[in-house]
Amino acid sequence: MREAEVAVTFQPQGKTVYVLEGTRLMEAAAGAGVVLDQPCGGAGVCGKCRVTVSGGACEPTPAEREVFSAEQLDAGFRLACQSSVCGPMTVEVPQTSLLAAHHKILARAKEEGTAQLAGGPAVRKQYVELPLPTRGDDRPDLVRLEDAVGHFEIDLELLRNLPARLRETDFCGTTVMSDHHLIDFEPGNTEAETFAVAVDLGTTTLVAVLLDLRTGDELAVVSRLNPQTRFGDDVLSRILHAGQGPDGLAELHEAITEAVDAMIGELVTAAGIRRERIYELTFSGNTTMQQILCRIDPRSLGEVPFVPAGGRGLLLEAARLGLQVHRRARVYVLPVIGGFVGGDTVAGILATGLTEAAGPTLFVDIGTNGEIVLFAEGKLSAASTAAGPAFEGARISHGMRGSSGAIEKVVVDGRLRTNVIGDVAPVGLCGSALIDVAAELLRYKLLTPRGHLLTPDKLPNQLPADLVKRVVLHDGQAAFLLAPETESGTGKPIVLTQHDLRELQLASGAIRAGILILLQRAGLEPADLEGVLIAGGFGNFIRRSNAQRIGLLPSKIEHHRIRYQGNTSLAGARLVAISQEARRMAEDLAHRTEHVDLSTHADFQMTFADAMIFPQD
Amino acid sequence: MREAEVAVTFQPQGKTVYVLEGTRLMEAAAGAGVVLDQPCGGAGVCGKCRVTVSGGACEPTPAEREVFSAEQLDAGFRLACQSSVCGPMTVEVPQTSLLAAHHKILARAKEEGTAQLAGGPAVRKQYVELPLPTRGDDRPDLVRLEDAVGHFEIDLELLRNLPARLRETDFCGTTVMSDHHLIDFEPGNTEAETFAVAVDLGTTTLVAVLLDLRTGDELAVVSRLNPQTRFGDDVLSRILHAGQGPDGLAELHEAITEAVDAMIGELVTAAGIRRERIYELTFSGNTTMQQILCRIDPRSLGEVPFVPAGGRGLLLEAARLGLQVHRRARVYVLPVIGGFVGGDTVAGILATGLTEAAGPTLFVDIGTNGEIVLFAEGKLSAASTAAGPAFEGARISHGMRGSSGAIEKVVVDGRLRTNVIGDVAPVGLCGSALIDVAAELLRYKLLTPRGHLLTPDKLPNQLPADLVKRVVLHDGQAAFLLAPETESGTGKPIVLTQHDLRELQLASGAIRAGILILLQRAGLEPADLEGVLIAGGFGNFIRRSNAQRIGLLPSKIEHHRIRYQGNTSLAGARLVAISQEARRMAEDLAHRTEHVDLSTHADFQMTFADAMIFPQD
Repeated sequence: MREAEVAVTFQPQGKTVYVLEGTRLMEAAAGAGVVLDQPCGGAGVCGKCRVTVSGGACEPTPAEREVFSAEQLDAGFRLACQSSVCGPMTVEVPQTSLLAAHHKILARAKEEGTAQLAGGPAVRKQYVELPLPTRGDDRPDLVRLEDAVGHFEIDLELLRNLPARLRETDFCGTTVMSDHHLIDFEPGNTEAETFAVAVDLGTTTLVAVLLDLRTGDELAVVSRLNPQTRFGDDVLSRILHAGQGPDGLAELHEAITEAVDAMIGELVTAAGIRRERIYELTFSGNTTMQQILCRIDPRSLGEVPFVPAGGRGLLLEAARLGLQVHRRARVYVLPVIGGFVGGDTVAGILATGLTEAAGPTLFVDIGTNGEIVLFAEGKLSAASTAAGPAFEGARISHGMRGSSGAIEKVVVDGRLRTNVIGDVAPVGLCGSALIDVAAELLRYKLLTPRGHLLTPDKLPNQLPADLVKRVVLHDGQAAFLLAPETESGTGKPIVLTQHDLRELQLASGAIRAGILILLQRAGLEPADLEGVLIAGGFGNFIRRSNAQRIGLLPSKIEHHRIRYQGNTSLAGARLVAISQEARRMAEDLAHRTEHVDLSTHADFQMTFADAMIFPQD
Repeated sequence: MREAEVAVTFQPQGKTVYVLEGTRLMEAAAGAGVVLDQPCGGAGVCGKCRVTVSGGACEPTPAEREVFSAEQLDAGFRLACQSSVCGPMTVEVPQTSLLAAHHKILARAKEEGTAQLAGGPAVRKQYVELPLPTRGDDRPDLVRLEDAVGHFEIDLELLRNLPARLRETDFCGTTVMSDHHLIDFEPGNTEAETFAVAVDLGTTTLVAVLLDLRTGDELAVVSRLNPQTRFGDDVLSRILHAGQGPDGLAELHEAITEAVDAMIGELVTAAGIRRERIYELTFSGNTTMQQILCRIDPRSLGEVPFVPAGGRGLLLEAARLGLQVHRRARVYVLPVIGGFVGGDTVAGILATGLTEAAGPTLFVDIGTNGEIVLFAEGKLSAASTAAGPAFEGARISHGMRGSSGAIEKVVVDGRLRTNVIGDVAPVGLCGSALIDVAAELLRYKLLTPRGHLLTPDKLPNQLPADLVKRVVLHDGQAAFLLAPETESGTGKPIVLTQHDLRELQLASGAIRAGILILLQRAGLEPADLEGVLIAGGFGNFIRRSNAQRIGLLPSKIEHHRIRYQGNTSLAGARLVAISQEARRMAEDLAHRTEHVDLSTHADFQMTFADAMIFPQD
């Protein structure tokens, strides 16, 4: 039986989620896509995740009483890592509590503007009033301009227009530079209109954010389903499609560029700006998505040894991708580490500040492919694991993505309690619930470490009645009933089957094996890890204890050392838009990260087999 | 009466000219476009201009007897600066005697190949056999290639093709780099086919040379009339046309690019190579020609203060100019110094090694605009003078360019002797004859220093009979008869009129005034000059003594210090094709040369007025 959920609204984001009472504010916020800073790992001591709550606030915890005065507590001040949901509520999130503020570059941009960052953004404007040519000062137009703003490259088309442009404006206007390229000379002073768009190119979801390059501020955010999903759910199906006929790649490329162009349209409408004032786009995605964006044949990514075309970051003309922004706007695509460790992982390393960690730290991006990066003793190593799409709901009988109608959380506390996204009747379950159910089944010993789900005739004694009736046979195999047909939005029961749990074993085991091998190569044990940084939209929804219970994350790591990082791919794309230093760092990180091909590792098969076994309690 | 001329053929150039007996070999060679080296200034001591003569050789001079053995003299060895034409002859010119060998960079390229030059050519090829990708070596394609040949930029189109190209060739092929850009990866080893084209963009004449970039060798040379001449003879008429209607500039641009493309066709046919193996084109011309080539509106070059668009050298894509060579071939256009001191002058400074001169040296390019550069005490200053088109035959009653039928040399030795280009009946006279006639008229006092040509009724006593009959009235003004209608190819007499001599005064005076002002600004007198380097096709034909007699060149300079340099614009374009160091030098030379606007100089009008007066004997 579904328990009533309560609405929690986050401001100024304007996002509402429905969660079970007792849910931590931090977790509810993650569900709303609002990722809060927690440098202390959620121990309640740093005070960084402060929010203001109105409505169903819980009583303050001892930690909160240490941090806040009585007046503040009365005014609704709480720590998101400590406080929970005790009723419908609104949570005000100050800018300073958002995770983004955590990164030094973003923090500095916020405080002082991007111009103070080392290098500043690649795109810079400068209003100039040049002295008019005279017989005593007959410098060439280009030299006159360079003497004012420094050396630049210029393309032929702009050079052809420059003499007329300068004379029409009486030699007063705004230079627009992109790196060392002059990309425009605009009439009047347009310094206030300097925009860029950062895009996270997910296999499933595209997210784009409009940035004010002077401040680094986000002016608008939009997201949509990656339209390439009609050609297949995972990257391999996209690579396969790219190889089908002469138009396969073009179809994929146009699908993505048209979607991005449409998102740019939404962003400029939302912010009330002109497309021509967008001078740069930055893209972060897995290697295949990035190659398709650039229309670089990805077929070699589909064959052993999975070789990317590029490697380092690419600078392209936006017009070549058919994107309608400034006519000489440029595109920066993040560098990649390997065929399955792409720009999104580089963005993640960059955005989480992984290399600034004091001790060995792991970065894990859990998705169709789990990307894992270990930073230890100054060295970076990275691997990808073919986790399969189980966490994204594919190959699971009633699996689905984390969208409306998905059971996203399951708690068994004598009886089953579920949380459904959108507060509607459930139609399936998403990856986080899959982990929850498996963890609870292991706790109640309905699931063996080897992944065998007990059948109704073999239940242990003293099992709570609510669970007894949920252990069923479904199409002849053992299954666990999450919602009977009377509660289901589909009119049919929603179950998790023996087969589904096998898929989870494979997915979880692959990531766990990857983690263990990277640690082993560095001579480390899980307990040596100072932190585990979890990235990706899906990562935000995982219950840490349950992920550890099923062995997806190493169990020997204290709970507070596992930290959600939000959409680090987008955060990295944003960083490289506002900071040339970040761009140089991204190139350096990609270059210095050792790419570990797990399949060639002698111990991989054995480690993988072991990792598929769920840990003993 | 025309004197018989004799044919002199130069080998291996295969060029034949017809000259009067007694003509110096050096001068005959210049007339054939064969410019010989003369580091000693024609004093007969350095032995650099040695040639081998068969046919009408003159007796050896004492200087030649010093340099050569009796056997060598018998075998026809002569010094071109000493020996003259005593009958029809063939002259073999060793490579080492050509002026081109004078420049250090060309000399080194000749001896050791271009790869030994600092920086080498911008275009370089390297055949590579890359290790095939394996699971243990899954470097991105780009990284694999860069690890073999070093870092490069790459455009999107080539990057898109690269993965397929590498796999089709089993990762063996030839990289083609242009500066830091990878512009192709060609199947097989194509290192032997690395070509460029250097072009001299003259207002009147276009010259293009095909270069082997490995050796710097010239493989073929072609020239043709600049088709823009149909829009006007001088740069101002071209600028005017560019401003007429929306298509004016496009017409001029297409005329020049179509002509260059046709010349490329001739070059590849002559050398038996493929257009796609030409990876670079270098262009040298005056500022207007260069801007029109790039389709940059030249209108600001036609208005005070005559401002060029660019300044520094430009790197463009050949495809953007519609030139059919390698699809990613690049174009380098030389930097300019001012609106009327263009890339051709920079090329001249570079090619003549002006800045390596031990003492104050002048570079003079005599044409429609006389460009003058002074190098003194480490400093370069440059000026242009609106000499007008008199030296090119325009605005002179029977003036014409130095082509077939032009009287190009006039000697008065009691009677008039003329030399006609092509050994045909004369149809006009060109600039060098104009100077000759004026000098002779001054010597015989038929012309006063103020430029007054005596009328038939005021002739001095004792004037040779052949001259007496040549002083005539033509359309009511005093004139000098060069060819009566019975000898003329037009059936009408060929004369030089009082008006023509006024035009000459203006042209010569402008250049002389420019020279004097540049010298004066540097605190120098003409006698302080260590050398005067004469450039331009026309320059080769000028008789030094006559140019000094009329005051075009300062009279206080010893004869042997005036040296012909041939087509220095083309030589400079060739240098920047084969040497990146030369390209850097060109940029530096353009940057450091002070541009002197003569018209703003306080003394210019007075100096110009004085300079129009022919020197006293």
